[in-house]
Amino acid sequence: MSHFLLRLYRKYAGGGDRAAFQRMENPGYRTGSFDGLHHPSDDDDDDLVDIAGATLDFTSTDDVPPLSSGYEEYSSSSSRAAGMNGNGPTKLVDPLEDPVPGLGTYEDFNTIDWVREKSKDRDRHREITKKSRQSTVALLRSVSDAFSGWLLMLLVGLMSGALAGGIDIAAHWLTDMKDGVCLIGFWFNHEHCCWTSNETTFQERDRCPQWQSWGELITGTSEGAFAYIVSYLMYIFWALLFSFLAVTLVRAFAPYACGSGIPEWTLIIKTITLVLAVSSGLSLGKEGPLVHVACCCANILCHLFTKYRKNEAKRREVLSAAAAVGVSVAFGAPIGGVLFSLEEVSYYFPLKTLWRSFFAALVAAFTLRSINPFGNSRLVLFYVEFHAPWHLVELAPFILLGIFGGLWGALFIKANIAWCRRRKSTRLGHYPVMEVLVVAAFTALLAYPNSYTRMSGAELISELFNDCSLLDSSPLCGYKQANISETSVGNSLADRPAGPGLYTALWQLALALIFKMMITVITFGMKVPSGLFIPSMAVGAIAGRLLGVGMEQLAYYNRDWVIFKGWCSSGADCITPGLYAMVGAAACLGGVTRMTVSLVVIMFELTGGLEYIVPLMAATMTSKWVADAFGREGIYEAHIRLNGYPFLEPKEEFEHSSLAVDVMRPRRSDPALAVLTQEGMTVGEVETLVESTHYSGFPVVVSQESQRLVGFVLRRDLLISIDNARKRQEGVVSASQVIFTEHTPAQAADAPTPLRLRGIMDLSPFTVTDHTPMDITVDIFRKLGLRQCLVTHNGRLLGIITKKDILKHMAQMANRDPDSILFN
Amino acid sequence: MSHFLLRLYRKYAGGGDRAAFQRMENPGYRTGSFDGLHHPSDDDDDDLVDIAGATLDFTSTDDVPPLSSGYEEYSSSSSRAAGMNGNGPTKLVDPLEDPVPGLGTYEDFNTIDWVREKSKDRDRHREITKKSRQSTVALLRSVSDAFSGWLLMLLVGLMSGALAGGIDIAAHWLTDMKDGVCLIGFWFNHEHCCWTSNETTFQERDRCPQWQSWGELITGTSEGAFAYIVSYLMYIFWALLFSFLAVTLVRAFAPYACGSGIPEWTLIIKTITLVLAVSSGLSLGKEGPLVHVACCCANILCHLFTKYRKNEAKRREVLSAAAAVGVSVAFGAPIGGVLFSLEEVSYYFPLKTLWRSFFAALVAAFTLRSINPFGNSRLVLFYVEFHAPWHLVELAPFILLGIFGGLWGALFIKANIAWCRRRKSTRLGHYPVMEVLVVAAFTALLAYPNSYTRMSGAELISELFNDCSLLDSSPLCGYKQANISETSVGNSLADRPAGPGLYTALWQLALALIFKMMITVITFGMKVPSGLFIPSMAVGAIAGRLLGVGMEQLAYYNRDWVIFKGWCSSGADCITPGLYAMVGAAACLGGVTRMTVSLVVIMFELTGGLEYIVPLMAATMTSKWVADAFGREGIYEAHIRLNGYPFLEPKEEFEHSSLAVDVMRPRRSDPALAVLTQEGMTVGEVETLVESTHYSGFPVVVSQESQRLVGFVLRRDLLISIDNARKRQEGVVSASQVIFTEHTPAQAADAPTPLRLRGIMDLSPFTVTDHTPMDITVDIFRKLGLRQCLVTHNGRLLGIITKKDILKHMAQMANRDPDSILFN
Repeated sequence: MSHFLLRLYRKYAGGGDRAAFQRMENPGYRTGSFDGLHHPSDDDDDDLVDIAGATLDFTSTDDVPPLSSGYEEYSSSSSRAAGMNGNGPTKLVDPLEDPVPGLGTYEDFNTIDWVREKSKDRDRHREITKKSRQSTVALLRSVSDAFSGWLLMLLVGLMSGALAGGIDIAAHWLTDMKDGVCLIGFWFNHEHCCWTSNETTFQERDRCPQWQSWGELITGTSEGAFAYIVSYLMYIFWALLFSFLAVTLVRAFAPYACGSGIPEWTLIIKTITLVLAVSSGLSLGKEGPLVHVACCCANILCHLFTKYRKNEAKRREVLSAAAAVGVSVAFGAPIGGVLFSLEEVSYYFPLKTLWRSFFAALVAAFTLRSINPFGNSRLVLFYVEFHAPWHLVELAPFILLGIFGGLWGALFIKANIAWCRRRKSTRLGHYPVMEVLVVAAFTALLAYPNSYTRMSGAELISELFNDCSLLDSSPLCGYKQANISETSVGNSLADRPAGPGLYTALWQLALALIFKMMITVITFGMKVPSGLFIPSMAVGAIAGRLLGVGMEQLAYYNRDWVIFKGWCSSGADCITPGLYAMVGAAACLGGVTRMTVSLVVIMFELTGGLEYIVPLMAATMTSKWVADAFGREGIYEAHIRLNGYPFLEPKEEFEHSSLAVDVMRPRRSDPALAVLTQEGMTVGEVETLVESTHYSGFPVVVSQESQRLVGFVLRRDLLISIDNARKRQEGVVSASQVIFTEHTPAQAADAPTPLRLRGIMDLSPFTVTDHTPMDITVDIFRKLGLRQCLVTHNGRLLGIITKKDILKHMAQMANRDPDSILFN
Repeated sequence: MSHFLLRLYRKYAGGGDRAAFQRMENPGYRTGSFDGLHHPSDDDDDDLVDIAGATLDFTSTDDVPPLSSGYEEYSSSSSRAAGMNGNGPTKLVDPLEDPVPGLGTYEDFNTIDWVREKSKDRDRHREITKKSRQSTVALLRSVSDAFSGWLLMLLVGLMSGALAGGIDIAAHWLTDMKDGVCLIGFWFNHEHCCWTSNETTFQERDRCPQWQSWGELITGTSEGAFAYIVSYLMYIFWALLFSFLAVTLVRAFAPYACGSGIPEWTLIIKTITLVLAVSSGLSLGKEGPLVHVACCCANILCHLFTKYRKNEAKRREVLSAAAAVGVSVAFGAPIGGVLFSLEEVSYYFPLKTLWRSFFAALVAAFTLRSINPFGNSRLVLFYVEFHAPWHLVELAPFILLGIFGGLWGALFIKANIAWCRRRKSTRLGHYPVMEVLVVAAFTALLAYPNSYTRMSGAELISELFNDCSLLDSSPLCGYKQANISETSVGNSLADRPAGPGLYTALWQLALALIFKMMITVITFGMKVPSGLFIPSMAVGAIAGRLLGVGMEQLAYYNRDWVIFKGWCSSGADCITPGLYAMVGAAACLGGVTRMTVSLVVIMFELTGGLEYIVPLMAATMTSKWVADAFGREGIYEAHIRLNGYPFLEPKEEFEHSSLAVDVMRPRRSDPALAVLTQEGMTVGEVETLVESTHYSGFPVVVSQESQRLVGFVLRRDLLISIDNARKRQEGVVSASQVIFTEHTPAQAADAPTPLRLRGIMDLSPFTVTDHTPMDITVDIFRKLGLRQCLVTHNGRLLGIITKKDILKHMAQMANRDPDSILFN
């Protein structure tokens, strides 16, 4: 299906850049996070990319013949470099003495074999350790090798932190640009512009003559309908400009950036388009793409260290740490970031990398803080400080928010998927630029009149989380301040009857809620870098704040109700609407993404108080349960399924009772499995066999009769070796015997030189018996990171199971069409 | 070796209670945490218990014949109950239709087979799901089944939290009892006693007539040498009494509590002895044993739910969550607890249980808080609030503390292990009660004169962490307060030249440091429940505080030095000695336990400020590196090795290049592997074969000639089935054929009824080829939780590798004597 789409896009979008769109596109957050993770090499951003669910579980095009699939054009220098290392898993000496370039490498878009990669790294490590005992230089090298991991993490942290800081500053500036310009220097944003002003006194803190809105600048007055309209138009103009630039840059540069193997380029385009997309006012966030930026940094920096450049498994470990770094800089929550990486990247990354991830996440967070993009010396994106404790009774509204979050999450996923499917299947999808422009115009048009939608998502959330103090001029704090003099508790508001300002704010918020809910559904999945965290949180925060203010007023006017009596005495503010906003935000985010622990921890890091974990947890848990009742998939899993990526979902239990024999190929009616024999086949025969099939590997057996398994040979290695031998090894012709045994068998004297290929054979292929239950087999695949597994019956080779077979089988079991879902 | 020890102890200690001592004994913390984890059933506290390193990786006595090892006497009701569930991994119908009790169960002290257990649970789940579509009652049951996990977690959290609260209160009371008694009621501790007093005014807040020290009560005066001596003697008396009670209770009850299968009993004894041990003033903490208490609770509560009672794997998941609960209540750090459980219990527990662990940890923490044992409404054990930020220059002393922590950690491990080895090998070990009494007397004698050693470890740490404020009367805050009136910054001290009070305190602290360092070495490993966290932290906190005060005075007297000039202006306290204490505590704890992430997170939760993570991290990292340079084992790993527990260390990389064929048995010179054939053997022959060997399982092959593998049968299942068939199945005699095939082969008409045993055969045994590198094999064992693995060569069965074989091989590779290390 996706090949079809690829072709379709080559046709319509003029140059095979569908792949790149896909990459910059939909499951915004995971796009950000996981194409990097799953395909760390720069050029693997094709259709298989947006794999979420986050285990490092790779797409399996195992049984697609890689050499004939036309993917080679994408193969990268990094992948080539990785290939130089070793020639197969065994140590047996072979006539083929110097490793042939390409042997043991991975085709792009192929699964990597974790077991082998790790084994390779252990060999390397053993080598270094052995040498280090011999000389001081080697010892130093061994030490530097040991510390290179830490150095790499430090660099990843520094670079990601710095980039995140730059993105924040740029996005802040461009966002303000939509509003107006600073007269003393256009490069200042609103805040900086007014900081430098001397006239900013306490009374006039919202006035600042240096900053002129576009309306003011053009019409000369800040009042009146004309100025408003001019500002309005300018706002729309900038929104359109930014979004146009973003989508055009993605279209124009990113695909080639991918194809030509320059990750630096991808990083730059991603960074720029991210800034533009965020500034354009579209309902999207920068958190997801920041994860991708961090992964790009990690990927680039990996090239500096041989250890990581040459080993895919090691590199992916670094990328998992980079995911933690991304979240860490996005929210200023290093622990949450590490847990995120852990919760999402669960199968392959043992806790060995946990410590390093944590280190990198911290370095990044502190780099970001020293850049101080928010100007408040705070680490976190939304700094929250609540003073009042919460009461047990409040759990009821918190759970209500959880239910809302769960319902919205489920609804959003269904609606967004339906919309994306529509985009895929109708002509809508052929005009990505137009789509972005229309949505941007629409967003700007509707967003400007309402101050809560006009401000950026992050600002909105900040304001909603905020607890009102006496000096707050925000309309959300528009309480009737009858008895200021009587307030005893610091500068917090004591009695809080809502004033007219607050009522207006509530109406605007309600409208903003509906608007955000609608627009996010069509925004997420467009062809600009888009994160879903901020929009989701905004929806939840609005709902939460509304409920919070409602509760507050209820408590104020009904102080003598039993439930309020005990804890809501007069003169103390007993309900914190900001807390409700936070709980609502967590609930909605949880409903959409189905994150749990990491979400609560991120929120905990925002407040720093363990007190508020219980409300957060109650809401997140409710939200997840409610949303799960409507479908177990989070938004990312849903997008994976929509796009048909073959991904072995780590959280999905295999529920059926089938056995390995039911899943393996060949099926009972099919012809027997194509196998090689360890001796007796000629080069010509092998070539014929390889060409007549499209398997990516072949088992080697003792003889066709016994079907006793000897090993497994990858198609790619086989073809490269034969090709190489024909060119470089004298006497190897089509009639030469191909020998996989250790000792050359006796041959006729006039026979041509045999071709010995034991060196490229995997002597320890994984096998299961035909009676192995599939749940166990799936477990083995996940835990060991296998690409394929051979099936035996009573010691005889019977068939093969690839990851794709498993996925097909699972699709069948779930009554989905296996062919429409997976690659073909 | 341990059998020998067991016998030895039966001889000397009169009743086989060595096992129980072992359990309550040494690697205090892990003792606490992990016998529960590794052997959740109540009666498995025998020698194999103290397995740390914490993966749920079980002892393998695989190849010891379980039925003849004399362990049956211990087998528990829970284990029996577990056995009722299913009769083997396959669904094939078998003549043996109703499951024989005992089939598929686990001998105690045996590894459990994770793959099978999980598969069993999935079967059960499928069954319930299927049924739930049929009726409402079944649907309800399915829902209650789904929620039983959460309910269990809730109960574990509540019970552990409540118990921890009780332990805290009791320990607090008994600790104060050593000092004196409350006249208005002996059940009040010092604090409560003085709370109820009306005379406690601000000036006299340290005086409280209701509380009388023993000296005062007996001599009638609180002054003078005589009163001091009386108090001194009473202190020693109580210390001896408490420690005597603790060690006697352990000796008298715990072994039988274990043997008779009542986990409630273990829990009660553990709780009581823990309180006594902590109160006795010995240099030990309650944190480790609290983890054990939580695990005991979980184990007891598991019996309430069929789902968990019947499945070992599920139960162990709950126990891993209980470990998180334990740390959560010990420190008031739920996130740290979850990370601890994750960092330590890494291989088997995927993130599925993460969320539940988190939930349980939170419930426990809040239960504890509502009990409020510390009387300060704080969740955390040491509540710390620092006001001053730290400066980059301070990283140097922090790293210095890290080096100190690392050195101390390494030294402590070496000294403690040497001491424990001495205890094991000399007559010292035969007098556990005497040892405890002597150490307690010695501790009390030396501790009393110095106020910093007289107070409990937790109090000491609290005081050291504390930041001085103006009103502090502690000698540690004995600064010269020349210019109180000038202080501008709240009530914090501004200029802080050390006064005489502080100098005295410093001397006392230095002595306390030396004392703590010495006494902890001999205390940890004695036969009372002992945790290592508090003593380790105390050592580090003292060192840190000393360095902190030193730095502070250096800065005060050298304000114009370049390094202090910028940030240490007069009138602002620029150095927080309390922070140094905290960093030192983390460093020492890190050096001893080699915990990393969870340690930093626990410390972070104590302060709640991300600011201080960097110092903590720098110190912990340095400490780990320094300590690792002297030996990679933490204290728990060292104790594992000391005690010879066969534990497949999850963090240890397998560094050697051996292949499966080098490790498997039979060796080249040995007789061939004992195998069963799938048909053609008689019951008598099978029995002879089983009796002539001591393997715990036998591969089944097609025929002796082909050696093609069919399946694997456990010795235990085989014996039970044959026994059962002989008793219950008509016509089964010694001459009956044993048949493992699906279809009964043709037989002579007069042949006796064949015995069909396909049902008990594992049809999907794991196999690797002989060429599989051992690093991969070790990985497979760890990740899949295997008990054994068969080795094939070209499809023929060649041998078998058990977990024990791997451990032996690893010991050999590390030049350790494999036989002295493992059980035999």
